[in-house]
Amino acid sequence: MNSFGRIFKITIFGESHGESVGLNIDGCPAGLPLTVEDFLVDIERRKGGTQKGTTPRKEDDLPIFKSGLFNNKTTGAPLTILFENKNTRSGDYEKQRAVPRPGHADLVAHQKFGGHEDFRGGGHFSGRLTVCLVAAGVIAKKLLGNATVTANILEIGGEKDLEKGLQNAIDAKDSIGGIVECRVSGLPAGLGEPFFDSVESLISHAVFAIPAIRGIEFGTGFAAARMFGVDHNDAIEDMNGKTRTNHAGGIVGGITNGNEIVFRIAVKPTSSTPKEQQTLNWETGAIEPFSVKGRHDLCIALRVPVVLEAVTAMVLADLLLLEQRIKRIA
Amino acid sequence: MNSFGRIFKITIFGESHGESVGLNIDGCPAGLPLTVEDFLVDIERRKGGTQKGTTPRKEDDLPIFKSGLFNNKTTGAPLTILFENKNTRSGDYEKQRAVPRPGHADLVAHQKFGGHEDFRGGGHFSGRLTVCLVAAGVIAKKLLGNATVTANILEIGGEKDLEKGLQNAIDAKDSIGGIVECRVSGLPAGLGEPFFDSVESLISHAVFAIPAIRGIEFGTGFAAARMFGVDHNDAIEDMNGKTRTNHAGGIVGGITNGNEIVFRIAVKPTSSTPKEQQTLNWETGAIEPFSVKGRHDLCIALRVPVVLEAVTAMVLADLLLLEQRIKRIA
Amino acid sequence: MNSFGRIFKITIFGESHGESVGLNIDGCPAGLPLTVEDFLVDIERRKGGTQKGTTPRKEDDLPIFKSGLFNNKTTGAPLTILFENKNTRSGDYEKQRAVPRPGHADLVAHQKFGGHEDFRGGGHFSGRLTVCLVAAGVIAKKLLGNATVTANILEIGGEKDLEKGLQNAIDAKDSIGGIVECRVSGLPAGLGEPFFDSVESLISHAVFAIPAIRGIEFGTGFAAARMFGVDHNDAIEDMNGKTRTNHAGGIVGGITNGNEIVFRIAVKPTSSTPKEQQTLNWETGAIEPFSVKGRHDLCIALRVPVVLEAVTAMVLADLLLLEQRIKRIA
Amino acid sequence: MNSFGRIFKITIFGESHGESVGLNIDGCPAGLPLTVEDFLVDIERRKGGTQKGTTPRKEDDLPIFKSGLFNNKTTGAPLTILFENKNTRSGDYEKQRAVPRPGHADLVAHQKFGGHEDFRGGGHFSGRLTVCLVAAGVIAKKLLGNATVTANILEIGGEKDLEKGLQNAIDAKDSIGGIVECRVSGLPAGLGEPFFDSVESLISHAVFAIPAIRGIEFGTGFAAARMFGVDHNDAIEDMNGKTRTNHAGGIVGGITNGNEIVFRIAVKPTSSTPKEQQTLNWETGAIEPFSVKGRHDLCIALRVPVVLEAVTAMVLADLLLLEQRIKRIA
Repeated sequence: MNSFGRIFKITIFGESHGESVGLNIDGCPAGLPLTVEDFLVDIERRKGGTQKGTTPRKEDDLPIFKSGLFNNKTTGAPLTILFENKNTRSGDYEKQRAVPRPGHADLVAHQKFGGHEDFRGGGHFSGRLTVCLVAAGVIAKKLLGNATVTANILEIGGEKDLEKGLQNAIDAKDSIGGIVECRVSGLPAGLGEPFFDSVESLISHAVFAIPAIRGIEFGTGFAAARMFGVDHNDAIEDMNGKTRTNHAGGIVGGITNGNEIVFRIAVKPTSSTPKEQQTLNWETGAIEPFSVKGRHDLCIALRVPVVLEAVTAMVLADLLLLEQRIKRIA
Repeated sequence: MNSFGRIFKITIFGESHGESVGLNIDGCPAGLPLTVEDFLVDIERRKGGTQKGTTPRKEDDLPIFKSGLFNNKTTGAPLTILFENKNTRSGDYEKQRAVPRPGHADLVAHQKFGGHEDFRGGGHFSGRLTVCLVAAGVIAKKLLGNATVTANILEIGGEKDLEKGLQNAIDAKDSIGGIVECRVSGLPAGLGEPFFDSVESLISHAVFAIPAIRGIEFGTGFAAARMFGVDHNDAIEDMNGKTRTNHAGGIVGGITNGNEIVFRIAVKPTSSTPKEQQTLNWETGAIEPFSVKGRHDLCIALRVPVVLEAVTAMVLADLLLLEQRIKRIA
Repeated sequence: MNSFGRIFKITIFGESHGESVGLNIDGCPAGLPLTVEDFLVDIERRKGGTQKGTTPRKEDDLPIFKSGLFNNKTTGAPLTILFENKNTRSGDYEKQRAVPRPGHADLVAHQKFGGHEDFRGGGHFSGRLTVCLVAAGVIAKKLLGNATVTANILEIGGEKDLEKGLQNAIDAKDSIGGIVECRVSGLPAGLGEPFFDSVESLISHAVFAIPAIRGIEFGTGFAAARMFGVDHNDAIEDMNGKTRTNHAGGIVGGITNGNEIVFRIAVKPTSSTPKEQQTLNWETGAIEPFSVKGRHDLCIALRVPVVLEAVTAMVLADLLLLEQRIKRIA
Repeated sequence: MNSFGRIFKITIFGESHGESVGLNIDGCPAGLPLTVEDFLVDIERRKGGTQKGTTPRKEDDLPIFKSGLFNNKTTGAPLTILFENKNTRSGDYEKQRAVPRPGHADLVAHQKFGGHEDFRGGGHFSGRLTVCLVAAGVIAKKLLGNATVTANILEIGGEKDLEKGLQNAIDAKDSIGGIVECRVSGLPAGLGEPFFDSVESLISHAVFAIPAIRGIEFGTGFAAARMFGVDHNDAIEDMNGKTRTNHAGGIVGGITNGNEIVFRIAVKPTSSTPKEQQTLNWETGAIEPFSVKGRHDLCIALRVPVVLEAVTAMVLADLLLLEQRIKRIA
């Protein structure tokens, strides 16, 4: 399903080398001020070209509003936003169709859609579609009011000194992975829905829609598996739910407890590495050497923070809208 | 939402100290043979009392079929199954209502439901409800045909020697966490739905509905963040999608690629530790020492494997049924 | 799908001659007072035996609460309610399996579920399941606050004098149809969701789940097809949306306009008529004379008003809860 | 919700006087051939200007494919189609904002969305959006294979001679309503899902999303309320479900029975009548005379058949795709 959310519902569409990619948001409240300018900072953060290790492809990604906006405010009707694709050279991909790229979805897409998939540049599976997530995130963040969602890179290739991690990859002429952390402050307690829509369930659902993510952990995460209970439990200190420590990462029983939400994700190395690899050529049936054409991000993790913020904000805005229905009889 | 799944749809209900817990499955194909005996092994695996570190509470959890079964086969109508709750002593909990247990959902449930929640033994947030997941898993596994879903404990308290890990906890008179791995063999390539319903998205969504889970990682997981691309990519070896290595854990672009699915989860130490803790008493407003009454699992991870298999099978059975609609025009 | 509703979500299960039928409600707000007594009037209204033309089968339908209720109030967790089936004589049906009853779902159920359906008394297709709708309606009506939902029979067999209509059927030794009208007062303007979830869309969706319904019309209904525009339009008289006439039946553009909601439904004659009919015997392949065994309602429309109120209240309670999320930025 | 469908899922967006209207289809199988030419006939049928009684506004509605199509075939990724709005003169509407048009959604939209709605020409509530339904119908019809969906006008203003019905309206200088019938041949038995997704439930849900519909009846419809059971029941004649008569309109127990589906809908007279009416002016608070500016359809029913076919095909294509999942164990 290309949709996500129960009240604030996002649908994503488009292909890497099609004319455009876009999104539709159904359930956005009416009256939210929205202009092109609101998107510039987050879209710029997602772009390549400004940091060592990201690709220089210029995209000039300005949102084009197609519906749901009137006099610079949302109307309550579905909001549709397009982003044009420019500078796409499909020829690069057509020649190599029979050679599925390792680490990419080329072969599974071929198997799933019977060869009808748009295979150029990953088609609908492309990281290009994350610009739509970022756009949804811009709107979702506005709905969160004073709550803030902030993601940062913790490590590149195991190095906390990020420049060093990138330099290692550049020296190795290879791509490299990283770890990104997200923190959310200012949310009320009580968000999340038992039994299946725990906050962790919804965030991880959205997070694993981002290409290249290999893992997620909340609060103490995998370290919790090595802890004793008395060390892990957070002592409750007041009726608002404030805890002395925050090993739970702000979520207990799947519900926000009013403390900061904290989680981390693992990003794999960019599949398109400059190094020579091997893969099948399905026309010849042989395993062949394979080299990536064109320039690609060495470390896709560098682009991930703003995307991670976006999907997190989407989930939380939806839960916040949902919570505002009557939850109890006065 | 207490429901999960798109075609094979599970609804979970009940409370720890209510009369029963149960589940409803809508969308189970007609004609599936089903008897009480089918449930015994997996329900036994989930029970306490048989392993060092698990609680001896006897539950005698036999499924009671209320609808959807006729002549020992599913009918195509919704299947409803109850499990009675026995040996529940609610008095233990009523006295301590104003003292929310650290690590439990007591306080967030109170905040979310305005004090109307059934607070006895965690109510609807209790691990007791995982018996319903196990039951759903028994049925889901049958729908997977020859594919197998197997979960095992990898570590207890950081020890690969599980007996030693448990003994450490017993010696410390504390609870302890663990890591569980799940592997799925025999599935076709092509399961999973772009953009938001990647296999990782759906599995993690379901996994984080299980109480006490802190993290999940697929394939190389968090280690991927420290790898170079050429080491991480799996070379494709044939048209069925067989790869030389399986760092991707059987999922590429969110879609199964025909190799074994592999993922691990982190289970936190049981919140009910024998050690004295501190928490708020909301009647007095003071932070008080707090001790758990009754016997509890030292290591809840010991009960998790069969629950993890169950939610994994639920997700995959649903995707398999979904895939069998026309995906392409012949 | 055996579920309906977006926030206030009902799932229906059970079979006519199974042990019980029941329902699950997910999304019912916490703190709603609820006792067995609340159900007695509406369940009695649905029962046979008290009116000329309805079947005397005694059901003693008392709701059995299985989850979601604590101290006589809803908890916010899913509510499960069972109704036991009593006095069911399945033998009557087993003998006649190869003879699908005209007007009933026997043959389509057989075709759809490959012969695995519970065929006794209509199984999951039985009117028996409407007791679950009535129960959902009791709860939904409570959520509507001061708004009232009232359904009445307008005609039996074309006669506004209902006794006369029934007597005609008794004289003819045949079953007969009828028309039921529903009116809802006291709702705010603004309920309903464009584009697909108009109030008419949702009400008609729920109404056609009731067995034996052949048509529905809102406001002027089919008569509108013969009217001129100037006669049909309702002049708006104040900012609350009050109109001089109410040809629109309280709904404009799919949204409530604050006036009384008015609609009517057509109920077909009971399929189980005392008259001899003809049908296929699939064992012999012959068309045979067919007679209904046992006693049945002559006019099923007599039982419909309380069921119609129930599904209407379900739809409107759901829309009311949905509307209470932020619809606009202040 | 602006989405409809479970597997074949349509989302509708846009406003009458915005830049464009459009639709997104998620779940369309891959490999379906699709070109602009496929849409021309049905879009032309929907247009005004070619029949007495319809408005001459030229729209030149050519579908613009934005995603999901590659080499003239669907890819399995979401399909997005836009239709540009031309010749829109918004000035006409802005001046009259404080004067909600009788029979239109102007006031309820204002109430629901707090004045943020795009009020020009009905905005998102406009009949203009039915072009998106027609486009979805073109694709859905292709998925139905050999089954045919055909809608025709039965009456205009109560006259079976349609020219005469229109002439009556022209003579009266008023708008007029009508009745449209839809028939579907060639579908298999077994479509439709108990308990809530009966075929009538889903068709009526979709039908009441079309503006101006007041009622729907299946098979004998409202006439069934006046019939005896023996006259209404359809004798089953063979194992395929063929019946001697078809009073059920091809649907029994909510499931297709293999006979022709037959239903009729009532269309109200166009709300924009040339006759002078009365309505509120919310600036002055007075009830004022009101006259419609510009040219409008005298009889909107004339445009309805192709839209009715479209929503019917959408529903049935979705049920057909759903049915192709495993419904029973072999």
